[in-house]
Amino acid sequence: MQQQINRQIFLVKRPTGIPDESCFKLVSSAILQPASGQVLLKTRFISVDPYMRGRMNNRKSYVPPFKLNQVLSGGVVGEVIESKSNNFIAGDFVVGNLGWQDYSIADEKEVQKINPEIAPVSTALGVLGMPGLTAYFGLLDIGQPKQAETIVVSGAAGAVGMIVGQIAKIHGCHVVGIAGSDKKTNYIIGELGFDAAINYRSTPDLKKTLKEACPDGVDIYFDNVGGEISDAVLSSINNNARIVLCGQISLYNATRIPMGPRIQPQLLTHSALMKGFIIRNYVDRFDEGRNQLANWLQEKKLKYTENVVEGLENTPKAFIGLFTGENIGKQLVKVEHDAVTEKR
Amino acid sequence: MQQQINRQIFLVKRPTGIPDESCFKLVSSAILQPASGQVLLKTRFISVDPYMRGRMNNRKSYVPPFKLNQVLSGGVVGEVIESKSNNFIAGDFVVGNLGWQDYSIADEKEVQKINPEIAPVSTALGVLGMPGLTAYFGLLDIGQPKQAETIVVSGAAGAVGMIVGQIAKIHGCHVVGIAGSDKKTNYIIGELGFDAAINYRSTPDLKKTLKEACPDGVDIYFDNVGGEISDAVLSSINNNARIVLCGQISLYNATRIPMGPRIQPQLLTHSALMKGFIIRNYVDRFDEGRNQLANWLQEKKLKYTENVVEGLENTPKAFIGLFTGENIGKQLVKVEHDAVTEKR
Repeated sequence: MQQQINRQIFLVKRPTGIPDESCFKLVSSAILQPASGQVLLKTRFISVDPYMRGRMNNRKSYVPPFKLNQVLSGGVVGEVIESKSNNFIAGDFVVGNLGWQDYSIADEKEVQKINPEIAPVSTALGVLGMPGLTAYFGLLDIGQPKQAETIVVSGAAGAVGMIVGQIAKIHGCHVVGIAGSDKKTNYIIGELGFDAAINYRSTPDLKKTLKEACPDGVDIYFDNVGGEISDAVLSSINNNARIVLCGQISLYNATRIPMGPRIQPQLLTHSALMKGFIIRNYVDRFDEGRNQLANWLQEKKLKYTENVVEGLENTPKAFIGLFTGENIGKQLVKVEHDAVTEKR
Repeated sequence: MQQQINRQIFLVKRPTGIPDESCFKLVSSAILQPASGQVLLKTRFISVDPYMRGRMNNRKSYVPPFKLNQVLSGGVVGEVIESKSNNFIAGDFVVGNLGWQDYSIADEKEVQKINPEIAPVSTALGVLGMPGLTAYFGLLDIGQPKQAETIVVSGAAGAVGMIVGQIAKIHGCHVVGIAGSDKKTNYIIGELGFDAAINYRSTPDLKKTLKEACPDGVDIYFDNVGGEISDAVLSSINNNARIVLCGQISLYNATRIPMGPRIQPQLLTHSALMKGFIIRNYVDRFDEGRNQLANWLQEKKLKYTENVVEGLENTPKAFIGLFTGENIGKQLVKVEHDAVTEKR
């Protein structure tokens, strides 16, 4: 048997502003053997997510920074190829927080089995994974949508936003999406059934366009983006509005603290609630969320789109594309294995 | 009997920035007679409150703007001198939202009877009135203080802040007050029992001083002030912090929308909650709040200070002093009546 290589992607430089490929390096290492209670996994899909940009800074946050000259990590779907755990057998698909690499060793408690009969295994990184759960708990627990309320979702064609809007439709809301291209706005109206969509890049007066799209004002704002888009939405909130802070992608690459209009007077005079959250706050309720999302998926109440890039070596490009690209839906990297590896 | 005069204070000009006395005018009118179901009141105390500044602008908010060339209004304690209501007799003290004037006619449903045996009647405008209820519901319902948590209160020597800090002490919190003079900080530590106090005017580095006063970080921020003081407090919040937006007095006189660092990333990464409220949201629970505050008052767990200016004609000055003055505690105007009037 030929010596197998485990290709890994290291963070070799902390980015300033939008990352470029010089921050990343493809390196080769040996494939390790699983110890007792561990499994050896072949990587099938890697998730790239906006929050990872924060971990590339050397700053304390809710997750520790990535270390320089070590393999990057995030959501990964893998196939068990060797198991020293009683919980898994070869051929099982699992999801966990693992390296950007061809092969991973994982402790049995680090990964969860995926049922491939419910949906394609890649959905464990999207609609049935972190983005889906983020949409589910952020919207239902903080946003608390009620029949006939108006919700605005920024980043509406992204992995989280597209699910938020559809769950809000299931709850009878008037759903307005904000996205950055006509391709995206056409998609969220035509495919996902949002009531209205605004291309913030081509709209001359976002505040005015929003007021037209939300004739009864905004009851819920699910914010994936932040910055000036949020300024515009906040100007239209109703009394007792709920603002769900999920992401601030417009600010992640900022090199200094961004300034904007102070929002507290607007929140105060409208008795509005603004709440940040991270999905780990809801870990005890993940099963509830996954089951409900899977049910909606099987009932065809929920659609999703994946944008799949092929090849481990293209993971940095896929990640950078989150901030610059025109992709719709969940951004994934499909990891192919060469013939020798496949035959192992 | 000599013809009696009802002096009234009109808003005659909408202020730009901090109001001055030219915005107000003392006018004379006749005293009206109560109709059936009404009472005639002699004004005893007038409350001046920061939120009134907002009503002086011609802008829609949670309360409509004051009208020009009409009598100003707000919290008033009055004594019934003539009753055409079965609910009141002459000599009763009542509180309600009434005019800045010597005499008022009130519908019986507009005013509530005060029990003068619990505390001086002026407390119906302070610790047992709107400021006390604001402190009570804002802190307990939104702030949700827990034993050993750290709370920071801005405007700590004001009518609301002084009560917030004391209720937080009753709940076992580490209480840090921010105020604008050494007289105030000495008062809130020495008289009210706050654990620490910061004079933001004399502190060269508020962020640093706050971190020293809050070695375990900030779990609750009760914000009466806004602006740069809030920027400093927000930099020290813990995960799952609650920020109670009660007032933004530092911004009320702003002539354009004030700018500041965007706060959403900080709220997001700390899973923090920020909630605005107005006390009318809690109207169904006012009795609960008043009873609890009265109990604490009688148990000597709650202290209060009033700053009393004498004379209806000095009401504008007292109001302006909220933004410029060095007063501690609830700002009231005591309305004296001349001998003729008194003998009526």
